[in-house]
Amino acid sequence: MNNASAKTEIQALIDTYRQAVQAKDVDKVMSLYDESIVSFDAVIALQFKGKPAYRAHWQACMEMCPGPHVFEFQDITITAAEDVGFAHWLVYCGGTNEQGETQACWMRATAAYRHIGGQWRIVHEHWSAPFDPQSGTTLFDLKP
Amino acid sequence: MNNASAKTEIQALIDTYRQAVQAKDVDKVMSLYDESIVSFDAVIALQFKGKPAYRAHWQACMEMCPGPHVFEFQDITITAAEDVGFAHWLVYCGGTNEQGETQACWMRATAAYRHIGGQWRIVHEHWSAPFDPQSGTTLFDLKP
Repeated sequence: MNNASAKTEIQALIDTYRQAVQAKDVDKVMSLYDESIVSFDAVIALQFKGKPAYRAHWQACMEMCPGPHVFEFQDITITAAEDVGFAHWLVYCGGTNEQGETQACWMRATAAYRHIGGQWRIVHEHWSAPFDPQSGTTLFDLKP
Repeated sequence: MNNASAKTEIQALIDTYRQAVQAKDVDKVMSLYDESIVSFDAVIALQFKGKPAYRAHWQACMEMCPGPHVFEFQDITITAAEDVGFAHWLVYCGGTNEQGETQACWMRATAAYRHIGGQWRIVHEHWSAPFDPQSGTTLFDLKP
């Protein structure tokens, strides 16, 4: 339970992931996923299954936000056995529009990992912002 | 990796959870969480930490939907080691309003588990519906 070296390795994977997204390096981001990736992303679709579908989505997301990417993680909690693990955290996420204005909000992230072929890989992730059940609008103004 | 008995036990926990929510049995639902539960629920707040806060939220959700509860699971995928596991699935979720009309939509669920004191417990869950990044509105009409 809570294998210390596994947690350290998953923390390193999360750091690499965050840096790759900030650098808009889609190849690097994609290298961190297992082929079996099933992603529940925050926008557009219920799920993205497999690397080709998810790569196309990542590419579209990067193009949607042309300016510098805001991607700050907080409250990262990692749980890991020898070859299965998961993590969750809050993320301040957004981009810069064509007027140079930063548009960002707090969201939630959950990721699940397997140790495959000597390396940790992301096999599932879930990104979201909560909504107001009365109005159905997304709650972009929440703060931790 | 993918310990078969652990997967069977987690599947049973998911079944119990689904039945308890449909029966609006908050005590039963709460008995499935570990004290350390951190929930990223679909509505209202970024997170609910600990059983007292999450119980109050579950109670409020049950009261928000007075009629029969719609709670159907699809595509359940479970990964488990001996004492750490996670699962994700799609869920057709909703309630019945005072006019007797069912209001439901497809959402996504991710849950993470630890085997503690001889039993599997939910230590984290993440529920959401995706939103349209252009309009910010929640996408309630998506289908698997």
